Amino acid sequence: MQAQMTDSIRISVDAMGGDRGPTIVFDGAVLALAERRNTSFIFHGRQEVLEPLLDARPGLKAVSSIRHAEISIEMDDKPSQALRKGRGVSSMWNAIQAVKDGEADVCISGGNTGALMAMSTFCLRPIEGISRPGIAAIWPTLRGDIIVLDVGATVGGDAKQLVDFSILGAALARALFDQDAPLVGLLNVGTEELKGLDTIKDAGRILSQASGAGFIYHGFVEGDDLGKGTVDVVVTEGFAGNIALKTAEGTARQVGTYLRNALKANFMSRVGALFANQALSAMKRKLDPRVINGGVFLGLNGVVIKSHGGTDAFGFKSALGLAYEMARSRLTDKIAEGMRRFPPMAAAATAIPEPEAKPA
Amino acid sequence: MQAQMTDSIRISVDAMGGDRGPTIVFDGAVLALAERRNTSFIFHGRQEVLEPLLDARPGLKAVSSIRHAEISIEMDDKPSQALRKGRGVSSMWNAIQAVKDGEADVCISGGNTGALMAMSTFCLRPIEGISRPGIAAIWPTLRGDIIVLDVGATVGGDAKQLVDFSILGAALARALFDQDAPLVGLLNVGTEELKGLDTIKDAGRILSQASGAGFIYHGFVEGDDLGKGTVDVVVTEGFAGNIALKTAEGTARQVGTYLRNALKANFMSRVGALFANQALSAMKRKLDPRVINGGVFLGLNGVVIKSHGGTDAFGFKSALGLAYEMARSRLTDKIAEGMRRFPPMAAAATAIPEPEAKPA
Repeated sequence: MQAQMTDSIRISVDAMGGDRGPTIVFDGAVLALAERRNTSFIFHGRQEVLEPLLDARPGLKAVSSIRHAEISIEMDDKPSQALRKGRGVSSMWNAIQAVKDGEADVCISGGNTGALMAMSTFCLRPIEGISRPGIAAIWPTLRGDIIVLDVGATVGGDAKQLVDFSILGAALARALFDQDAPLVGLLNVGTEELKGLDTIKDAGRILSQASGAGFIYHGFVEGDDLGKGTVDVVVTEGFAGNIALKTAEGTARQVGTYLRNALKANFMSRVGALFANQALSAMKRKLDPRVINGGVFLGLNGVVIKSHGGTDAFGFKSALGLAYEMARSRLTDKIAEGMRRFPPMAAAATAIPEPEAKPA
Repeated sequence: MQAQMTDSIRISVDAMGGDRGPTIVFDGAVLALAERRNTSFIFHGRQEVLEPLLDARPGLKAVSSIRHAEISIEMDDKPSQALRKGRGVSSMWNAIQAVKDGEADVCISGGNTGALMAMSTFCLRPIEGISRPGIAAIWPTLRGDIIVLDVGATVGGDAKQLVDFSILGAALARALFDQDAPLVGLLNVGTEELKGLDTIKDAGRILSQASGAGFIYHGFVEGDDLGKGTVDVVVTEGFAGNIALKTAEGTARQVGTYLRNALKANFMSRVGALFANQALSAMKRKLDPRVINGGVFLGLNGVVIKSHGGTDAFGFKSALGLAYEMARSRLTDKIAEGMRRFPPMAAAATAIPEPEAKPA
């Protein structure tokens, strides 16, 4: 039996979230525990459903507890509806609450993104000085992984919000990649200064002045800079960010389908595929969306990870690994440090009217 | 010597546009003429530069003329600057003017996109009832080519503009793919009606009511629907559209690089690549950005095609082929027909305040 280590990372899990039910959650946790032994889990959900699943996995059971929650949030619940029905009584809410109460270091859910963001914002509240939280994606590029945010928590947004995302994204890069001064770029439709939206230009001016305070400001980047890995952190509002994310996923699948079809096209290509099998499998792993799974909610007083709702045990394991690393690298401390080091934070907040804080 | 046929398509070419100079323009025209014999060309640019290039290509010379233009628009000229210095005297302006004067059926340039859009809008004027022109891309998908617009002429935009783009994109699909009622989708961040921007929801309501008038309204689509080819026409404002386009291009290149590296990884994979060579080459052609080259400016009284500035002769040939097909299929007639068939056009124009028409 695995003794719980004093420095173990405590992960609070919404065991009822996701399209495939709690079994993949437990199987994912077994895999995650095998990779990182000093982890403990709190599983939130219906006791009578979760208990037999945990009993069947004694290694996991040794480092886990179950907290009963009567309600599960459905994938099609609207955020406001989820808040009304789920506050204090749902597995999703309780998983977040455990972070607020200091019982866990990080929360994870594969449930409804809008509901999770609304509940996280309502329960944990935005960090003082940050107008709205964002969702960061870890994006594989030719130069290694980079961070892209926001990929869907916001729609539109002013210059202050883009500056906030830059501070948050840079803190995440420092935490995750151990970079001292990550390169930050603003996603735009042209690299010349004349192009793009005024909000992006305004944010660019503020970031230029602050460059060096925990990040280096690179300037504007375009959609094709994402795959190249031109910068370490790409900042955008959530509408364009979400479209970029899904377009990239779709294009990768499209090219993958072309490749599969090409390798089945004739006898010679099928023979070729056999010879190249090992190398092609390595490439396939690189493109596997389950390897890098999990959006990081940034800007709240606590870390929440959103796993893809449709993933399997292997994918949920990846998201648990991300949650672990976020807690281990003390992301929230890195963010607080980033905000202290950012000189125009106060100036920007007075220069640009602050929008009303509201849950996404 | 090739006799000019009475039904020949007359293409007006800005021979000075593009990063690689006029040689690729003439080489591209030779290739295009070999594919579509009933084409004639007017080349605009410096007589002393163009004449020897045309003299060296007698087959092309037989169906071409040269019009001297003193000025060339540079790739870094701002649109306003290009209009000031180039109106009436530049190869770009004169190439557009030839369409306005009825001397040519379609104009093509590989030059500065912003300048070309500003000049095209100023010279040809938007079609009555269309607030602003857009740029349409032909997008390869798993289900065949589709149309995506706007990919960069506009930034932001109201519901009326998205409805305009839907009419224009549907007309282009009818012209290019010979579809009777193409499926139109609005690019959004979620397929549920509650998500996304109000302008997109408003446009969705107008299109729902008008569905059947030259197109079928499908509803919202997301970024990954682009590569799937879920609909025939994807409509968005130009900021998100440009980011989607460049993200897809970048991702395709990224996966292509993974594949090349995988096939060079070890001896076995190199042998495999030899066996699969033919099938992989066919796949490479599918991903070649030169095969589908050319943005279509939509919403003006005349058709202008933007070729990629960095393309080679083969790529310019593809853009000339697109220009030919736009003229042959009588795109402008199809647009006029689309506007006549769209019942809420007048209603929408009164219900939603019409923005001031201004050049992009």
